[in-house]
Amino acid sequence: MFEAAELGQKISKKEFDEAEPVLHTKLLEVQRQLRKTNIPVIVIVSGVEGAGKGAVVNRLNEWLDARGISTIAFWDQSDEETERPPYWRFWRQLPPRGTIGILFGSWYTKPVIDYVYGRIDQPEYERRLRRISEFEELLTIDGALIVKFWFHLSKKDQAKQLKQEAKLLKKDIKGSLMKKFAKRYKEFIKSSELAIRMTDQGIAPWHLVEAVDKRYRDITVGRVLLNAIEKRLEQKALQPVSIRTVDVTKEKTGAEARTLLDHVDLKKTLSKEEYQQKLEKYQRKLYKLAWQAREQKRSSIVMFEGWDAAGKGGAIRRITAAMDARLFKVISIASPTDEEKAQHYLWRFWRHVPRAGYVTIYDRSWYGRVLVERVEKFAQEDEWKRAYHEINDFEEQLCEHGIIIAKFWIHLSEDEQLRRFKERELIAWKKHKITDEDWRNRERWNDYKTAVNDMVTRTSTEYAPWTLVSGNDKLVARVEILKTFCQHLEQALD
Amino acid sequence: MFEAAELGQKISKKEFDEAEPVLHTKLLEVQRQLRKTNIPVIVIVSGVEGAGKGAVVNRLNEWLDARGISTIAFWDQSDEETERPPYWRFWRQLPPRGTIGILFGSWYTKPVIDYVYGRIDQPEYERRLRRISEFEELLTIDGALIVKFWFHLSKKDQAKQLKQEAKLLKKDIKGSLMKKFAKRYKEFIKSSELAIRMTDQGIAPWHLVEAVDKRYRDITVGRVLLNAIEKRLEQKALQPVSIRTVDVTKEKTGAEARTLLDHVDLKKTLSKEEYQQKLEKYQRKLYKLAWQAREQKRSSIVMFEGWDAAGKGGAIRRITAAMDARLFKVISIASPTDEEKAQHYLWRFWRHVPRAGYVTIYDRSWYGRVLVERVEKFAQEDEWKRAYHEINDFEEQLCEHGIIIAKFWIHLSEDEQLRRFKERELIAWKKHKITDEDWRNRERWNDYKTAVNDMVTRTSTEYAPWTLVSGNDKLVARVEILKTFCQHLEQALD
Repeated sequence: MFEAAELGQKISKKEFDEAEPVLHTKLLEVQRQLRKTNIPVIVIVSGVEGAGKGAVVNRLNEWLDARGISTIAFWDQSDEETERPPYWRFWRQLPPRGTIGILFGSWYTKPVIDYVYGRIDQPEYERRLRRISEFEELLTIDGALIVKFWFHLSKKDQAKQLKQEAKLLKKDIKGSLMKKFAKRYKEFIKSSELAIRMTDQGIAPWHLVEAVDKRYRDITVGRVLLNAIEKRLEQKALQPVSIRTVDVTKEKTGAEARTLLDHVDLKKTLSKEEYQQKLEKYQRKLYKLAWQAREQKRSSIVMFEGWDAAGKGGAIRRITAAMDARLFKVISIASPTDEEKAQHYLWRFWRHVPRAGYVTIYDRSWYGRVLVERVEKFAQEDEWKRAYHEINDFEEQLCEHGIIIAKFWIHLSEDEQLRRFKERELIAWKKHKITDEDWRNRERWNDYKTAVNDMVTRTSTEYAPWTLVSGNDKLVARVEILKTFCQHLEQALD
Repeated sequence: MFEAAELGQKISKKEFDEAEPVLHTKLLEVQRQLRKTNIPVIVIVSGVEGAGKGAVVNRLNEWLDARGISTIAFWDQSDEETERPPYWRFWRQLPPRGTIGILFGSWYTKPVIDYVYGRIDQPEYERRLRRISEFEELLTIDGALIVKFWFHLSKKDQAKQLKQEAKLLKKDIKGSLMKKFAKRYKEFIKSSELAIRMTDQGIAPWHLVEAVDKRYRDITVGRVLLNAIEKRLEQKALQPVSIRTVDVTKEKTGAEARTLLDHVDLKKTLSKEEYQQKLEKYQRKLYKLAWQAREQKRSSIVMFEGWDAAGKGGAIRRITAAMDARLFKVISIASPTDEEKAQHYLWRFWRHVPRAGYVTIYDRSWYGRVLVERVEKFAQEDEWKRAYHEINDFEEQLCEHGIIIAKFWIHLSEDEQLRRFKERELIAWKKHKITDEDWRNRERWNDYKTAVNDMVTRTSTEYAPWTLVSGNDKLVARVEILKTFCQHLEQALD
């Protein structure tokens, strides 16, 4: 595969001097156009050691307007990063829409290196590469343009380059690492070839660039990037449809068809005494479990969805009251900030994934995409339809990292909701909780019900199952939630 | 001092049950009003171990609307935090305007503990407490409301409390730490007293709360907080004036008065050959120094200000071209995002302070406050006048942490600027660099000149001096900048 990048391609100084100003001007022009779009451009710079990746990054910085471009080097991992799933560090640094991010080191680096050094076997390697493909697809389908460069050098040329670099440094600071890479040239090439092959997809193709001649290398990069952005700007109006989109519209078998939600027993009740006793029992338990989880560096995510007035807030307070306030963080999902809007919708949830040993409680969540955004048509059909897959993948990554997930849908009957709405209007400190929007949402009860059923069906996975909570009696709901979260913790902790 | 909090104050259950709903309603009401203001509320929860700080935090979370409140626990420091100046972790978590942040652990914790354990002596302790005062002043004057609670227990009551808690935990997870604190009760009280005394200022007074009776404790906290927010909401229109404001308006001694800027020799030139030779020399040097700095975990901040068209971008590219792209980050300061606008103006610069061993290059900076914001009147007079002090303090914190700072003002004659503006309009890839705004700024040359002179005079400190760069010849400027940065690095590194 790499033979195509060992052809000895060159550009003369004259050719370069003619081509550069034209390229430079055009790149600035597309960058300006880009700024007005919602397209983030992700440039991936990778390849063999010694191929001048750093020089290419510098060249791009020279050609492009510094405002609206960022170079992101993924190198040392901080503990804040290692304590979260591997993709957290990539999510946190993705370029906002309308800007260009040059990634020096990327999601490819670790899998490739791990395979070279035999830390993972081929099936695991391929699994990681598939994850990369899916991640790139998720970004692309959301509007991103991904331009991937692989810089190649033959073994002989690499040796020459590394020698030169070491000379420049005099002191052999980077030397040992370089030598290490050069020694593994063959394994590295083999590992890379598989990576390129498996992730070379139409939406994010690889560009193999011969790196011996610097002028050829740089002009090629500039042209490929220019071409890719130009093409993407033209396509702007096109609506990509993900192959992962699931069609949830089913033939209705009649209004009386029973759904998952209908199976929730809303008749359960609990006396005040029983409640007090159980509440205390599970709160004590949770208090200890939360400390234990911290000791064992296991994080949890507790997530609440439910009808308006289902009692999410009250349930959350019963959980937080049981834990040391240093151990948890409650994230109430309201409208996104502009930094959040400039990113994929999952970005604002990724950013709050807890560090090792801590708990994040989400009051409403990423499921907004397939609930309110679906019903109110804030998201386009294709967007929410592919969200099931994106969400499952997100949660899978959390679980693989050992994060304990508890997802609650608090269910309620229409009548009980009405009763609570009316009650809220009467009680002073609850008045703020009831808005016109709540009344409007209520009119769409059936649409929401369909959405909830689809959601639970499609995202109740083995690793992150939904718990449908009987919510007509708040006391029942609170105890059930506490109990379930405790169970999740007990199962996961030693 | 703490005797006032050992009076055995109590509230009966009946009193509490009557007071709570009223308090609850009122708190929600002021919280709603707060949302529309630009006031961030910072609630500091501190005091002796066992006083129920966690319970208070939970109580506040119960009383307030979860949207617009966040609990921020400062506990374990991550390496991303330890690699930056101590206040970085506080800055990154400050509550946005219109919201309430409950700080569980705060800037007080480490100084108090360090003093208790004899890790710092009294002068250093007092120095740190003064820094706290200034920090709180900076926030307050910017609009923040700071409400500080100190929860007190007598030694006997503390022992009782800690025993109970340990019993609840059964396993002695937190036990050892608690015991440790209890053992040092006297030292802790002494250390705390000094902290409270030195930081008990009108703008951010301390509230000593007796913590034996939980009902008394919680109601007191609620009332103090309510009262503080109510008062602050009334004051809204008031314009606080910082005592640190410096009056820079001086009697002009006539138009011919020579300024600092006039002393910059703009006649220097460099031949193409000399330039090439020196450029190469210093770039080689910088390449090595940057690696060395990383080895020694020393960070740098390089900051560029200068007239429009002074050649900041070109100078920055000569620096970045010399360094490995993984070692630096360029931050171009454009208009702030809404997350940035919701914070003190220094917040968006703090967020990019580099990790240990890395370089952040700021293309324009916090000095915008005393340059463009002053001249264009984007900042109020009091705001930019107190900024000199705030900036010096910010830079002092960077330096104390061992960060190497290089600040460049690239100077230019009016004629040379005009020549460059015209040139830019002619060259295709430079066209985007010249806007109507640049022409408008040019008309205010003298206002800017005054502002620059004031800035350089007031912020050229021993630890972070300005370098005024001769910029009429770009080649001279680039070499001077590279050379100066190299010198800074050489001086600082072993």
